[in-house]
Amino acid sequence: MTQEQLAKLFEETRLTSVNICEPLETEDTVVQPIEDISPPKWHLGHTTWFYEKFILEKFENNFKPYNEAYNYLFNSYYESAGVRAVRSTRGNLSRPLYKEVLAYRENVNDRMLSLLSKKVDTEVLQLLELGIHHENQHQELLLTDIKYILGVNPLLPGYKTMPDNEIMNIPSLDLEFLPLEEGMYNIGNNGSSFCYDNELPTHKAHIASIAISNRCITNAEFLEFIKDAGYERFDLWLSEGWTWLKENQITAPLYWFKNEGKWKYFTLHGLQDLHPNAPVAHISYFEADAFAHWKQMRLPTEFEWEIASVQFTNTNKANLLGNGILTPVPAQNYDFIGNVWEWTLSSYLPYPGYKQPDGAIGEYNGKFMINQMVLRGGSCVTPDAHIRNSYRNFFQTDKRWQFSGFRLVKEQLL
Amino acid sequence: MTQEQLAKLFEETRLTSVNICEPLETEDTVVQPIEDISPPKWHLGHTTWFYEKFILEKFENNFKPYNEAYNYLFNSYYESAGVRAVRSTRGNLSRPLYKEVLAYRENVNDRMLSLLSKKVDTEVLQLLELGIHHENQHQELLLTDIKYILGVNPLLPGYKTMPDNEIMNIPSLDLEFLPLEEGMYNIGNNGSSFCYDNELPTHKAHIASIAISNRCITNAEFLEFIKDAGYERFDLWLSEGWTWLKENQITAPLYWFKNEGKWKYFTLHGLQDLHPNAPVAHISYFEADAFAHWKQMRLPTEFEWEIASVQFTNTNKANLLGNGILTPVPAQNYDFIGNVWEWTLSSYLPYPGYKQPDGAIGEYNGKFMINQMVLRGGSCVTPDAHIRNSYRNFFQTDKRWQFSGFRLVKEQLL
Amino acid sequence: MTQEQLAKLFEETRLTSVNICEPLETEDTVVQPIEDISPPKWHLGHTTWFYEKFILEKFENNFKPYNEAYNYLFNSYYESAGVRAVRSTRGNLSRPLYKEVLAYRENVNDRMLSLLSKKVDTEVLQLLELGIHHENQHQELLLTDIKYILGVNPLLPGYKTMPDNEIMNIPSLDLEFLPLEEGMYNIGNNGSSFCYDNELPTHKAHIASIAISNRCITNAEFLEFIKDAGYERFDLWLSEGWTWLKENQITAPLYWFKNEGKWKYFTLHGLQDLHPNAPVAHISYFEADAFAHWKQMRLPTEFEWEIASVQFTNTNKANLLGNGILTPVPAQNYDFIGNVWEWTLSSYLPYPGYKQPDGAIGEYNGKFMINQMVLRGGSCVTPDAHIRNSYRNFFQTDKRWQFSGFRLVKEQLL
Amino acid sequence: MTQEQLAKLFEETRLTSVNICEPLETEDTVVQPIEDISPPKWHLGHTTWFYEKFILEKFENNFKPYNEAYNYLFNSYYESAGVRAVRSTRGNLSRPLYKEVLAYRENVNDRMLSLLSKKVDTEVLQLLELGIHHENQHQELLLTDIKYILGVNPLLPGYKTMPDNEIMNIPSLDLEFLPLEEGMYNIGNNGSSFCYDNELPTHKAHIASIAISNRCITNAEFLEFIKDAGYERFDLWLSEGWTWLKENQITAPLYWFKNEGKWKYFTLHGLQDLHPNAPVAHISYFEADAFAHWKQMRLPTEFEWEIASVQFTNTNKANLLGNGILTPVPAQNYDFIGNVWEWTLSSYLPYPGYKQPDGAIGEYNGKFMINQMVLRGGSCVTPDAHIRNSYRNFFQTDKRWQFSGFRLVKEQLL
Repeated sequence: MTQEQLAKLFEETRLTSVNICEPLETEDTVVQPIEDISPPKWHLGHTTWFYEKFILEKFENNFKPYNEAYNYLFNSYYESAGVRAVRSTRGNLSRPLYKEVLAYRENVNDRMLSLLSKKVDTEVLQLLELGIHHENQHQELLLTDIKYILGVNPLLPGYKTMPDNEIMNIPSLDLEFLPLEEGMYNIGNNGSSFCYDNELPTHKAHIASIAISNRCITNAEFLEFIKDAGYERFDLWLSEGWTWLKENQITAPLYWFKNEGKWKYFTLHGLQDLHPNAPVAHISYFEADAFAHWKQMRLPTEFEWEIASVQFTNTNKANLLGNGILTPVPAQNYDFIGNVWEWTLSSYLPYPGYKQPDGAIGEYNGKFMINQMVLRGGSCVTPDAHIRNSYRNFFQTDKRWQFSGFRLVKEQLL
Repeated sequence: MTQEQLAKLFEETRLTSVNICEPLETEDTVVQPIEDISPPKWHLGHTTWFYEKFILEKFENNFKPYNEAYNYLFNSYYESAGVRAVRSTRGNLSRPLYKEVLAYRENVNDRMLSLLSKKVDTEVLQLLELGIHHENQHQELLLTDIKYILGVNPLLPGYKTMPDNEIMNIPSLDLEFLPLEEGMYNIGNNGSSFCYDNELPTHKAHIASIAISNRCITNAEFLEFIKDAGYERFDLWLSEGWTWLKENQITAPLYWFKNEGKWKYFTLHGLQDLHPNAPVAHISYFEADAFAHWKQMRLPTEFEWEIASVQFTNTNKANLLGNGILTPVPAQNYDFIGNVWEWTLSSYLPYPGYKQPDGAIGEYNGKFMINQMVLRGGSCVTPDAHIRNSYRNFFQTDKRWQFSGFRLVKEQLL
Repeated sequence: MTQEQLAKLFEETRLTSVNICEPLETEDTVVQPIEDISPPKWHLGHTTWFYEKFILEKFENNFKPYNEAYNYLFNSYYESAGVRAVRSTRGNLSRPLYKEVLAYRENVNDRMLSLLSKKVDTEVLQLLELGIHHENQHQELLLTDIKYILGVNPLLPGYKTMPDNEIMNIPSLDLEFLPLEEGMYNIGNNGSSFCYDNELPTHKAHIASIAISNRCITNAEFLEFIKDAGYERFDLWLSEGWTWLKENQITAPLYWFKNEGKWKYFTLHGLQDLHPNAPVAHISYFEADAFAHWKQMRLPTEFEWEIASVQFTNTNKANLLGNGILTPVPAQNYDFIGNVWEWTLSSYLPYPGYKQPDGAIGEYNGKFMINQMVLRGGSCVTPDAHIRNSYRNFFQTDKRWQFSGFRLVKEQLL
Repeated sequence: MTQEQLAKLFEETRLTSVNICEPLETEDTVVQPIEDISPPKWHLGHTTWFYEKFILEKFENNFKPYNEAYNYLFNSYYESAGVRAVRSTRGNLSRPLYKEVLAYRENVNDRMLSLLSKKVDTEVLQLLELGIHHENQHQELLLTDIKYILGVNPLLPGYKTMPDNEIMNIPSLDLEFLPLEEGMYNIGNNGSSFCYDNELPTHKAHIASIAISNRCITNAEFLEFIKDAGYERFDLWLSEGWTWLKENQITAPLYWFKNEGKWKYFTLHGLQDLHPNAPVAHISYFEADAFAHWKQMRLPTEFEWEIASVQFTNTNKANLLGNGILTPVPAQNYDFIGNVWEWTLSSYLPYPGYKQPDGAIGEYNGKFMINQMVLRGGSCVTPDAHIRNSYRNFFQTDKRWQFSGFRLVKEQLL
């Protein structure tokens, strides 16, 4: 992208984050019910600090930090950027106020645009592009965290009304299995546009012949698992999953509530009847794996997923952030992209030949490459520009607050 | 008090609570940095629920709860009042909003005043008086919790400016010891006005002859203890206190900050130089006990304290909530009442002949009579009408967020 | 006592400890199922270290420690005696072996007797007497810890067969209440023989008129409490007790097992039918307090207990260690002494005028004077010479592995 | 193997386990310092229970369990085999005694040999072979657990004297890198003799061209890392590893002790000087990964490791259990097999096409396939018959009590 295009994208991106918070009440921007979640005003501050710390501090003339304390408060995990507040305390901090964070955003926006009004180094542009993608990522987190904040509240307030939409009334695709041929494939990002370091380098991988389901597992299908005592049969579960289930008394996906015998599902559009045809979401890796075990199938590896998503790309259809529907919809297409993140049977590890960038930017991805599983494809709250076939998301196996679902693989074609 | 007087007091009390929160920003009303602290909007809701649950539910015609969920959200610890939200989750709840809590207050105020506009049962008046004292207690907690919320924030924002006051510039009384004669004394509340059940019944107690200090220990005196390695000498500490100190890396009272070699102290009026002549506050029982040990003295028992406070009552002078000074001041008088709560060498246990009231009201005091120590005298943020010589406050031995200090006793007169 | 008498007592005491361990298997001497419990071989080593550290190190010519590491391994809680192994790790240590500990005992015995073969300082005799009482205390702990080690084992092995005894077949005394007159009494040890610092100084205390039960509550009476849903009614419990009960799923005293509808009770003589007429034992303070609450009575204070035990002393009858019955027996007498330790309504705090001794010996009692309750009277495994009316034992309110029971007080005579 | 051969191997294997415990004192067989470790007598009981539960219960005529309680006590993690004792409590159990466990072994040995004295089903033979390999695995665990039990003891007792051996005095191989060619390789066990389910099925994998070190990293090389502040530089560590290091205050491999400036290393042959030329052992995955990062290299994947170990197999030389040297020796050969387990850059996940066996046996491997990393090659205490190129061991990334080391990979040949 040109400097002008990036500057424009920067402005749009900055506005989008603020717009996402617009329906919130001030109180909603403060709380942190669990450590995974960050208060919305923290997200707004942190994404701003990223530009100030990694671009302005180095490239602005006569740089002076907006507020010395903000480097402490808004640093997420960058050891190279100095000491930082303990993550679990973000929800203890009433100050800076929401409006003070907005003022901080304005200030950094102005300084960034002033910097960008003259020709800048390539390094600035690279960091800017990274900063924009970083902010995209936090836009998604903003929405998943808002969902958690509202969903954990006994009053179950909605975030925004749902746009009128026919799609909710259409049955999803019949479950079928798409064959993948054995062979050598190229894996990883080979495009010329932006990608993260963890999608590189492109490299070859061999896969055996399998068949992958044409869509994700639905709520109705997952209900069958529950009815068949899926949460009570140890033989279906990984040992660590069984311990997790027992300790946390898990009996259904997150945000499922049983009300007088009827399943309800909390969405960003408020509490709704559980939709049978929408893909199941907000499940842990353990739950996805147990379901697959129950079906005598397995999850796809991230390579199988990537190959399939490229091969069947013309039948993709994205339910992403842009359309305003903030909940998964029944699949009428293969939907590799959008709707729900899909757990894969692959650990988050470096690709062969992976090089971690130097300095703080190197802390972005590489240091998390352990004890997490890869998810692919983006969800209904992923910004449209922020997803691609090679994108590798990653979470620990017990996490459920993302829109996480799965599809299945059969090892022998029937 | 007559019904009219109580109704008027009710109105004033209700207003005071709201006024206490007036200087806060909305964000400040939401957070709960540690379990001991409650969010200010929770205090406002809970004190309101108390009237609705214990008076209106029983005595209002056609009672209908303002919001079914509030009984769950605003019940503190009353097992008899049904299931309740886990205490540690109060800070996770962005809803109800601050303004919604204020509306709840208005509604209950109106219904209470409507009920009180006609002649009511004695039981209503008794519960009303209890409710007012309960709210007084929460006014104090509001201020200590606000202090904690602001004091744990790296930005250290002040709550309110300090009124001009000469007293801060006057040295405190010289430390002297007042003799108490051996003998039998009456202990407990013998007045006709309101008191809690735990101040009853009055009963006799024998004390030996001792001398009690004429004021509390000051910051300057406590600094001497620190300089003499008081926090590093195990022989001065109770075993449990030494473990607490090591685990929490305690090296000074709460809210003390060392800045370039100079001690600062966070107050509700903002960060100030540590005042040498003001009584030390925000220390645990362990710290008070270790200091006494260091001086080869001890803390007074609650009986000794009560006897002395009655005997020297004309030299009391109260720095209580009403004067607007929200921090301890140098003692020019004996100050048994006001300034700081004083740890005593007495466990919080029932008086001989104590009767726990029936029902939910019986849960107010009696069920906490274990593993806590008694504090006496009220602090600079105790509502003026909410303290008396017989008042028994109680906290666990490691608690420091209250304005807690101490005075000393010598067992043999010199 | 004379030096000769003490030397003889030393020899007997040393032998008794070893005899207590004689019925054990080597494996039994090693384990530590919970932190409160110490492995038997640790008790044998620690009591030995006490003499070596506090007497031989100071008074033996050319002192050389038996093994440098033993000061680290066998120091219980004496900060003044240097660094020590973490208490919870005692059960991790297979070495020194049981036989090596016995050899250590022999060595220290010989050196002590050699020292005592010549005239020694009064200080040595005082420390020796303390050491003997210290070892007596550990003899009791040895037996309670052995009971726990065997009682937590699914195989429930007995420790020793029960001596033939008629007493188990006789009903206990009918429950009656003995009046105590209001007045001033002397409290504390006023004898000339040994006592601990915490029993001093003697001092006056006033008590109101009450009536105290002539014996402790029996298993049959406690079963009534259970049948009346005593463990399920929050209103009977202290708040902290209710939390403890819920978290630990407590539904009966320790060592009670329900087998096909019938209550069994594990004793040092093996698993037996629960004896209806024996006093209930192995209950926490919380359980004693809840029972009293259920009866609308209360526990005696330690002063009331001491006054009654002195007043009715001729009806005492001791089931102590010496008779070889290692389980509580039905009371045919008032049994203030022996059978079970009795929880009192008194916190463990210093008496007025208490002076903590200097040095390591000062750590024996004083530093534990917080957050514990006093128990009085000794139990069926207390060495006969180790109990007296003024003896103050103390435990945290949730502890149950001691033979702890209780008697009741009525505040108004009926 | 024929039934006769298996029966003979059974007898030998049973004897070996007992022989491993022979140098222990009874006390050593009881303790469990951390949850990962099991008491030696538990290992002896558990391996016995495995035959009784999975073979005798099904195939013995008139089966009657040796002791009903043993199914509860000696079940490790088989949900299908009924309720079991909590793992962390194994060290609390003094009973059954060591000698009682030996008697249990004898009994089951006799019954097994009696069963095997007649022709049995293939299923019996398969289970028997599994049981023998299972016991082999526990022989290794016995030795690593014994090392931990002795190494955590302040007295640091040795287990057995070291056989005279020249090898300790010879420098290890110079560090060189062996090239592996890009291509498709077969992975997994393709032999006809026993292997675990997790080594199957054989399948193809593609690897890029790399170079792998001809031996593991030595203590001297690891010391360089420490001297270069390797444990203090966050940029070298995975985020989770950095947290682990901070929380556990890790500054060196397990069993390294610094004594007056000199590094010592605890071995099963007692405390020794740290051997510069022996491979580093007892490090976590985090430490191996940080070292590789420091060298700007990486760990091999399990595929790369397996390919190299097959390709260079004639230069393997095994320091395994059989030679009696129970500590890693300087490498004079490539030593893929023996000496130390080697961490790989591969998560423990199922091979494509993996089928988990039915029933309890299916719990052996498959349910642990999450959040663990693969180790390859066996160690100095692995039974000689229990290791092969395709063998996949697996541990969590923070585990250090195994003899775990690593070798390095360069991605581009220099």
